[in-house]
Amino acid sequence: MSEHENRAENPAEELTVPELQRRLAEFAAARDWQQYHTPKNLVAALTVEAGELLEIFQWLTPEQAAGVMADAEAAHRVHDEVADVLAYLLQLCTVLEVDPLQALAEKIERNESRFPAP
Amino acid sequence: MSEHENRAENPAEELTVPELQRRLAEFAAARDWQQYHTPKNLVAALTVEAGELLEIFQWLTPEQAAGVMADAEAAHRVHDEVADVLAYLLQLCTVLEVDPLQALAEKIERNESRFPAP
Amino acid sequence: MSEHENRAENPAEELTVPELQRRLAEFAAARDWQQYHTPKNLVAALTVEAGELLEIFQWLTPEQAAGVMADAEAAHRVHDEVADVLAYLLQLCTVLEVDPLQALAEKIERNESRFPAP
Amino acid sequence: MSEHENRAENPAEELTVPELQRRLAEFAAARDWQQYHTPKNLVAALTVEAGELLEIFQWLTPEQAAGVMADAEAAHRVHDEVADVLAYLLQLCTVLEVDPLQALAEKIERNESRFPAP
Repeated sequence: MSEHENRAENPAEELTVPELQRRLAEFAAARDWQQYHTPKNLVAALTVEAGELLEIFQWLTPEQAAGVMADAEAAHRVHDEVADVLAYLLQLCTVLEVDPLQALAEKIERNESRFPAP
Repeated sequence: MSEHENRAENPAEELTVPELQRRLAEFAAARDWQQYHTPKNLVAALTVEAGELLEIFQWLTPEQAAGVMADAEAAHRVHDEVADVLAYLLQLCTVLEVDPLQALAEKIERNESRFPAP
Repeated sequence: MSEHENRAENPAEELTVPELQRRLAEFAAARDWQQYHTPKNLVAALTVEAGELLEIFQWLTPEQAAGVMADAEAAHRVHDEVADVLAYLLQLCTVLEVDPLQALAEKIERNESRFPAP
Repeated sequence: MSEHENRAENPAEELTVPELQRRLAEFAAARDWQQYHTPKNLVAALTVEAGELLEIFQWLTPEQAAGVMADAEAAHRVHDEVADVLAYLLQLCTVLEVDPLQALAEKIERNESRFPAP
């Protein structure tokens, strides 16, 4: 498949946060879904998806939770929900013009001061 | 500060998802916090932080929510909570050995089939 | 149906918080589910169900959200998710020995002091 | 204080769900807060408060979580967040005209059919 070959040739282009943000925006635009992608709706959707990720773990003991990826169906659900959380987080960052990686890098630096390593 | 100089020289190296995952793991290890970073705890923390992000928007009208970044204090809170959500999502992915960007790329492809563009 | 007649005769017994807590405990015990009903699991489940309630509203405008009960299917989902949120909240209160109505009455009193009416 | 004496004389009247819903509505009306209490905002607030309740438990082992009420400060936070979750759930039910106890009773009956006891 030529699309797949192309991806293999340009792996860096494919799997970066800005590139995924571009693809998500294109996906929404093609379906006229941008009208729903207000900041408040996107944050609500992010929270809903975080809850769906938590649902996978809610009745598991810590031991069962640690082994969740050994179950193929659970592992698929984890991938799926991680993707959904990230999708809404990135779309929120796009509409709010927040750079998520920069925000995290700055937060780690603030936390280095706030919680000095022993 | 040599670390900062180094960062300025290699900005691309600094602001990638794998690099941030490495820094988060180093931060946790230096404080002996990895013991708390079980999958179940990290998913709970991710959900809690998504809720804190939602809290910023909960009483706003759609119009107020769209303008939230014009308020310096709210904008700072948004950056802070986006960073927290991303931090726990990346740490969860580290412990579960999930590649978040790959998971999202695959989900976008599944959604292309599931919701064909008109 | 005799069960229904019985309910009509004892409406007060049926629809109080302590009676519903009793029925939930009986339901869980009959299925040997109490082992899963640890405080942490119940709080996680409560958060998951709150997310499912939010899911109904996530893409709605404020106007659409205000009219949600006019749609029979959405109204059924709302009843269902309200019930789930309340179920896990009451079961959490049972295991933690918290009286939810007393807790709320006390919180309202604290809020009367904290936010004096104009 | 006469209000308090009155409450002590009629404890049953005070601590029912409809009475608490009435007090919450009165509290909001006195502060002109009803304008914020749209269904979508109240569901968002409910989810946020569920997250704050989860925050108390997020890093605890199951054993620590089971003993959380032995710590006076944690016990106070639990009461406070349980009250907040219940407050927003009841206010949501008021604006949507859902009877929460009836909704739960009906859900328990549906679950009796869905998950027959062994």
